[in-house]
Amino acid sequence: MSSIPDTLARLEQTIAQRKGADPSSSYVAKLHSRGLPIIARKLGEEAVETVVAALAEDRDELVGEAADVMFHLLVLLSAKDVSLAEVMAELDRREGVSGLDEKASRPAE
Amino acid sequence: MSSIPDTLARLEQTIAQRKGADPSSSYVAKLHSRGLPIIARKLGEEAVETVVAALAEDRDELVGEAADVMFHLLVLLSAKDVSLAEVMAELDRREGVSGLDEKASRPAE
Amino acid sequence: MSSIPDTLARLEQTIAQRKGADPSSSYVAKLHSRGLPIIARKLGEEAVETVVAALAEDRDELVGEAADVMFHLLVLLSAKDVSLAEVMAELDRREGVSGLDEKASRPAE
Amino acid sequence: MSSIPDTLARLEQTIAQRKGADPSSSYVAKLHSRGLPIIARKLGEEAVETVVAALAEDRDELVGEAADVMFHLLVLLSAKDVSLAEVMAELDRREGVSGLDEKASRPAE
Repeated sequence: MSSIPDTLARLEQTIAQRKGADPSSSYVAKLHSRGLPIIARKLGEEAVETVVAALAEDRDELVGEAADVMFHLLVLLSAKDVSLAEVMAELDRREGVSGLDEKASRPAE
Repeated sequence: MSSIPDTLARLEQTIAQRKGADPSSSYVAKLHSRGLPIIARKLGEEAVETVVAALAEDRDELVGEAADVMFHLLVLLSAKDVSLAEVMAELDRREGVSGLDEKASRPAE
Repeated sequence: MSSIPDTLARLEQTIAQRKGADPSSSYVAKLHSRGLPIIARKLGEEAVETVVAALAEDRDELVGEAADVMFHLLVLLSAKDVSLAEVMAELDRREGVSGLDEKASRPAE
Repeated sequence: MSSIPDTLARLEQTIAQRKGADPSSSYVAKLHSRGLPIIARKLGEEAVETVVAALAEDRDELVGEAADVMFHLLVLLSAKDVSLAEVMAELDRREGVSGLDEKASRPAE
């Protein structure tokens, strides 16, 4: 098992490389060839599956679905030319400004 | 801006620390005090918002919503005592077995 | 084409009849045999597909996905022994109390 | 309590009437003034809330969330100039062709 950084950074690179590959040879290329709506839909569906796995108390499925969410989120960001670093910077910014407590004022609903 | 590993690893730690804090002082503690269904719901809602931001061509909002998905996914995993390392290991495993091409055989729908 | 009442009332009846049928002979029975998490997941996925179809400007697909949402919502209600009449009564109640303007005070977000 | 047809047909009419009203006086008008992405997002969020309510065994909340799904689905259809009758016709068509068993061949996943 590699560390968190290795995994996501490598996955982002792999996705970027496969973006323009032959759709018949790569799942990433196939998603890209089908277009943004399909990629966005996949992210939404995987999130729904994660929600259900968490509530259905299926721990193994939760791990797999969370991985699917991460993966398809990276594919969606790639499709929109947003880097993972930008998302991390946004997370850092939020914590930097005022800690997670900045979020304490936000309604949980 | 810190690196991807620093951000997510630190965020996971922070979430673990806030888990049992006073709900009035921390957004994470507030989510945990409201229970798993609310946490799961938040993840699903943020994913829907990410889908919409991507399709509505709102790049800044996409960055913010993707950060929200990451954040609430970590809170959900924490609530179920699943570590981010387990999810990364699953992503590594999939790529290790056969590369992302393992996924080429999966239907995109 | 039949009227709105005929369609939904008949669909609710059909779903109730198929609930306990042989899973190999009926999609409704198959969903029920797979359990509540799968039924709930299907509703969530169809809603995501409806969102995407609406934003992707695919009118025909929107009609089909909206039908899928209605259908799977009825299956989910049936699984939880909630009648469509109860949901209609709730819609009537909201409008009855104060018209849809009752909702004007609700934040759209 | 009125019947299913009365409720939905009247709700569709009311939504059509409020579509162009003053956003400060009507929730429907406010949604329309905010645009299609916000309306689509609301449908997706309400569906997630319905999924969670069903799995969290909260029957009263399920009734309320199912009403929210119906309501926001009608607002979304209205925004795209799709009538509820078209969606009903699609449901009739599916059942007409071959009964719900037409759906038996569809994968539940």
